[in-house]
Amino acid sequence: MTGTGDPAYLGWSGRVCAATASPQTLTYYNLGIRGNTSEQIEARWQAEAAPRFLFPADARLVFSFGVNDNCIEDGHLRVSAKGSIACARRILTQAKAQYPTLMIGPPPVEDETINDRTVVTSMAYAALCDELAIPYLETYRPLRQNPIWMNEVTLVDGAHPGAAGYEVFAQLVLAWAVWQNWFV
Amino acid sequence: MTGTGDPAYLGWSGRVCAATASPQTLTYYNLGIRGNTSEQIEARWQAEAAPRFLFPADARLVFSFGVNDNCIEDGHLRVSAKGSIACARRILTQAKAQYPTLMIGPPPVEDETINDRTVVTSMAYAALCDELAIPYLETYRPLRQNPIWMNEVTLVDGAHPGAAGYEVFAQLVLAWAVWQNWFV
Repeated sequence: MTGTGDPAYLGWSGRVCAATASPQTLTYYNLGIRGNTSEQIEARWQAEAAPRFLFPADARLVFSFGVNDNCIEDGHLRVSAKGSIACARRILTQAKAQYPTLMIGPPPVEDETINDRTVVTSMAYAALCDELAIPYLETYRPLRQNPIWMNEVTLVDGAHPGAAGYEVFAQLVLAWAVWQNWFV
Repeated sequence: MTGTGDPAYLGWSGRVCAATASPQTLTYYNLGIRGNTSEQIEARWQAEAAPRFLFPADARLVFSFGVNDNCIEDGHLRVSAKGSIACARRILTQAKAQYPTLMIGPPPVEDETINDRTVVTSMAYAALCDELAIPYLETYRPLRQNPIWMNEVTLVDGAHPGAAGYEVFAQLVLAWAVWQNWFV
């Protein structure tokens, strides 16, 4: 999924790749699915990564999830706070055992009741990644304070920004020293 | 994979989506993998499409393969001419039974021995799609005659163009009446 709401169909990850490296150097597969929770990603990521990493390459993984866990569906939280952290622990532990891995934290949306849960999730992911020695980029607080992000999310669908908001997100990744050093 | 060789990381499919519809209307998942043959796509497409089509939507499929079948690996054709058509028949028959399906034919590359096989494959896919009542867009001949495509493919890696070549490919799809009518 390349950026729901993005008229350029790039999303933050496409923008980050385009600004990071030449396409001869970096091949990028975007395996995000609209609305997926961490548990839905856990069920498929290994099967989907494997055929993409057959081609001889310096394979790497970048995960980003958490907002959908904190949404309400049919009156219930989609993934409990405990379940979300336990799932992230399983995904990231298995990922790191196989490939260099980064984690990008969940961003804020329009709904502040979701945000109140997401900020807690984001802090728990940070602590987990610290424990697992996986670099973690928090996006929640910088985006919550960013009027471009918050305005576009409200205008588009309550959860996804437009082109300018994706660019703001991409700039957070591009400014991250960990990201910059990953390609040295 | 969003356009090996494309500095914009869009490829032809990203460019087609951006020119076709607003991102609120059209969510696009690019499941191409570098170097995949038809048989490798057959092994994974259903498992990868299913979780992307869980979200309530008017789900559609667009396939494009064939060049890698016609490449030599370890002294052997990766997929035989017969095998390639048989595989396309299985994929497209199963696809059409589940979702509206289009097929985009394989483009030319730099190597004319591969091209000599690809043009035969492309004509066989056209006949197969006609039999299965699946719309087929031939790209081989218009791109073989297009100097932008052929020059960029030679400059980049022998198989993939740069931004201008992907734009030429995208324009073939956008000019296709079948594509235009798919969104009416």
